[in-house]
Amino acid sequence: MNFKIQILGSNSAIPYFNRFNTAQIITVHNEPYLIDCGEGTQIQMRRYAVKYSKINNIFISHLHGDHYFGLFGLLSTYKLNSRNKALTIYSDPKLEKMLKSEFSPINLAELGFDVFFVNLPKNDQVIFENKHLSIKTINLKHGIDTKGFLFEEKNGDLNISKDAILKYKLSIDQILSVKAGNDLVINGKVIPNKNLTLKLPSPRSFAFCSDTAYHEPIIKSIKNIDLLYHEATYCQDNTEKAAEVLHSTVIQAATIAQKANVKQLIIGHFSSSITNLNLCLAEAKPVFDNTILAKDGLTIEITRKHELIVTE
Amino acid sequence: MNFKIQILGSNSAIPYFNRFNTAQIITVHNEPYLIDCGEGTQIQMRRYAVKYSKINNIFISHLHGDHYFGLFGLLSTYKLNSRNKALTIYSDPKLEKMLKSEFSPINLAELGFDVFFVNLPKNDQVIFENKHLSIKTINLKHGIDTKGFLFEEKNGDLNISKDAILKYKLSIDQILSVKAGNDLVINGKVIPNKNLTLKLPSPRSFAFCSDTAYHEPIIKSIKNIDLLYHEATYCQDNTEKAAEVLHSTVIQAATIAQKANVKQLIIGHFSSSITNLNLCLAEAKPVFDNTILAKDGLTIEITRKHELIVTE
Repeated sequence: MNFKIQILGSNSAIPYFNRFNTAQIITVHNEPYLIDCGEGTQIQMRRYAVKYSKINNIFISHLHGDHYFGLFGLLSTYKLNSRNKALTIYSDPKLEKMLKSEFSPINLAELGFDVFFVNLPKNDQVIFENKHLSIKTINLKHGIDTKGFLFEEKNGDLNISKDAILKYKLSIDQILSVKAGNDLVINGKVIPNKNLTLKLPSPRSFAFCSDTAYHEPIIKSIKNIDLLYHEATYCQDNTEKAAEVLHSTVIQAATIAQKANVKQLIIGHFSSSITNLNLCLAEAKPVFDNTILAKDGLTIEITRKHELIVTE
Repeated sequence: MNFKIQILGSNSAIPYFNRFNTAQIITVHNEPYLIDCGEGTQIQMRRYAVKYSKINNIFISHLHGDHYFGLFGLLSTYKLNSRNKALTIYSDPKLEKMLKSEFSPINLAELGFDVFFVNLPKNDQVIFENKHLSIKTINLKHGIDTKGFLFEEKNGDLNISKDAILKYKLSIDQILSVKAGNDLVINGKVIPNKNLTLKLPSPRSFAFCSDTAYHEPIIKSIKNIDLLYHEATYCQDNTEKAAEVLHSTVIQAATIAQKANVKQLIIGHFSSSITNLNLCLAEAKPVFDNTILAKDGLTIEITRKHELIVTE
């Protein structure tokens, strides 16, 4: 089952040719989740053949326009496409108030499908959970309330080996007991669960951290994960400006990745003033070598064996 | 002095690859005017090198999202670019209410520049006028209040011929009187104004008519103009659907152009269901031969001699 990140927008607020505002699709076990929805997200979805009708959960990191102005158009398109499945939006409560206000750009009552809102919590906590995945917030440091999101795959049910079923002639009750993690007792003899079940692959993980200044408290949340997306709005020559506007430099993003011991870093949310992104990469690599650049349309698949397959 | 139309978005509501939502730049005597501002308009402006900081007047035909959702991002970008020049938005009064409401996506008070609103009038009338240009509304037929816009160049001051100044040894007062259109009286003899002044080029004209069902009352407003942009959301196989949702077919757009005797028709606002636009052209041309297809990035210059120069 897949675990895949697709970048739909890699630029910061002011648009740059071929670098849209922030949006990412995280697909876990074939279910797509949308993080942020900057202006033009639905256009990018069309460009990169994202099946946007399948999205049921949208996570908005914060209410700066470049992270949610595309939501109005996406909701309109869902209406025009006669969507009837409910949609859940996880965001700062102000978004719900805006969309339910008298002069909202979108009339929720006329959409033809339910929109549920989940307010992002004050402290880091799990906000979404199903059989395969849990999603936890990460408090970031920005001008307004801003959350990162940690996507952690769950270990599913244990798989019992066919050999064990045949060897011990297990009943249905015994199989269910072993799958629940219990050891097997036959004639007073204990057979450990691990001898009966297949080794589970270790869970995969991804964190989205944007927008944020350099903020070490996030490190504990993203320790040892497979892939970290961390904003890197500026290069080193703009370190002071980055601090002033509560954004990060490339080197700061790389430092967080290095301290959190993540396997791979992807940097994005680039300022439009950066025209040659290879300069960013050159700054990042001495600090954290496993760094790649976000690029609109880029896909990163994390395999069961925790290998990363990058496709442009 | 130029008179130029640039298409930034040629598609209807649901996006299609490389066909953005409605937006056009009309440049008259080097002053750019923006008509409509669908999602992604600022991205298109960047793509097609439009100097968007020069825009001082924005005209919104109606409040369906695909005609104005890009306004939020554009205003944000103006703020980030430290714009300080005032901006005037001509629209349905609901837009002003939305942008001034408590939960507006944009806080007008924090933009750093003034935004003035002009409410579009109930009846067709001139809403903008300067030395070179007048802009008049055209009532269209759509699901909500919708206006088209007629851009008409003005004749400037008369130019007096140098030969006349030398021949009659004219004083400053006499020159001003002739430029104001008066005849010249010398020793009781009347010299007609037309013998003293240079022939003015005839004014150029363009009309934007979108969104609208087939609506003959617009013909009187657009009679004999140089260029008509008329929406053509559907091909003939969707004539019933077009009537139902108050849009036009290609043939209806061409019929309006033919009855109004315009010089050139450009059709756009295409449904995403139309993948081969040449079929539209094939439907239009038997009704009105001088038809071209809108395409994102397309520019049409109307010369002083009323020739049209189309550049892709």
